[in-house]
Amino acid sequence: MEQNSIVDAVLKNIFIEMEASGRHVHLTKGQAEKLFGHGLTPDRPLSQPGQWAAKERVTVVGPKGEFRNVAVLGPERKEAQVEISLTDGRVLGIQPPIRASGSVENSPGAVLKGPNGEVTLGQGVIAAQRHIHITPEDASRFGVKDKQIVKLQTYTGRPLVFEDVLVRVSKDFATRVHLDYDEANACGFQNGDLGRLLPCKKPC
Amino acid sequence: MEQNSIVDAVLKNIFIEMEASGRHVHLTKGQAEKLFGHGLTPDRPLSQPGQWAAKERVTVVGPKGEFRNVAVLGPERKEAQVEISLTDGRVLGIQPPIRASGSVENSPGAVLKGPNGEVTLGQGVIAAQRHIHITPEDASRFGVKDKQIVKLQTYTGRPLVFEDVLVRVSKDFATRVHLDYDEANACGFQNGDLGRLLPCKKPC
Repeated sequence: MEQNSIVDAVLKNIFIEMEASGRHVHLTKGQAEKLFGHGLTPDRPLSQPGQWAAKERVTVVGPKGEFRNVAVLGPERKEAQVEISLTDGRVLGIQPPIRASGSVENSPGAVLKGPNGEVTLGQGVIAAQRHIHITPEDASRFGVKDKQIVKLQTYTGRPLVFEDVLVRVSKDFATRVHLDYDEANACGFQNGDLGRLLPCKKPC
Repeated sequence: MEQNSIVDAVLKNIFIEMEASGRHVHLTKGQAEKLFGHGLTPDRPLSQPGQWAAKERVTVVGPKGEFRNVAVLGPERKEAQVEISLTDGRVLGIQPPIRASGSVENSPGAVLKGPNGEVTLGQGVIAAQRHIHITPEDASRFGVKDKQIVKLQTYTGRPLVFEDVLVRVSKDFATRVHLDYDEANACGFQNGDLGRLLPCKKPC
């Protein structure tokens, strides 16, 4: 094993890579066709296997403001979801609840505009609860389980300990911490920064 | 002592009230006169004694964007300072350093526009380091000193522990934690939420 590989292996036993997610939209196939006249077109892969950013972009409209050129992530889903930060929510005039991805019941809606048409969502706008995508192997090594809430120390410009971090375990994941931009900026996150799970004596 | 007073007294021995500071500008008297044609006019008092929000507002312009209707705080200072969040910095196209208030050497500048004229700042744009204004009495009670860096547990919707919180002690202060909106949103802050200083075994 070369020195870099050894260092990498040791680091991966202690730290987890962090990523900041900007505002983005998930769509159904029908919604994509209404907005763009066709299904989503993969542009570039994301860190989670099988996930990608689409070439298509949408405008998200709320009662107080809008964001143009918002990323759309693929593949298409069974239900639309708009993930924004609380800061974004103030601009749009929408108060998103803090939710795990996929949990959109009774969340606020928004209007989406594309080059081919628009879609009015009755619900689906959330702020994603900070979370860790983790493989079963890494979960076992770090001693955490699916849906557990854990604490995460950030090694960043403005260090802090996030306390309500949701663990999501799947063999389809790459191991990464996902923050929104409020959280990323609050800890001074830069690409490549690492976090560390803190041990919990009792449920965190 | 009535029950509420007792509860308040106990709470104040454990917790510190938190506040979120939106983007704002401090000006010199000369700059205020150039922007507005006169000095600043007090509108409403802030929590820190002697500090107030002015009736006057400015537009802050950066290379990529601008914010209109930005709060100006008085009284006038010896040097201008523009306090924004890192999120604001992305909109403006300005990367503010994380600094204590008053520490603006070699920080980026910005253009300020008022109804009467504009001012180009060569420096002065910062993101305020999260901090605690604290009276000497409270500092003594909590066992902290001026310029110390401490940890603060938030009791908020998305709890976390801020790790690099600057203590500023003065008899002219009211005891309050000041966060910017990235930090406030990252912890799910609502008005009235409380924080607690965490004990440090060694320098935090």
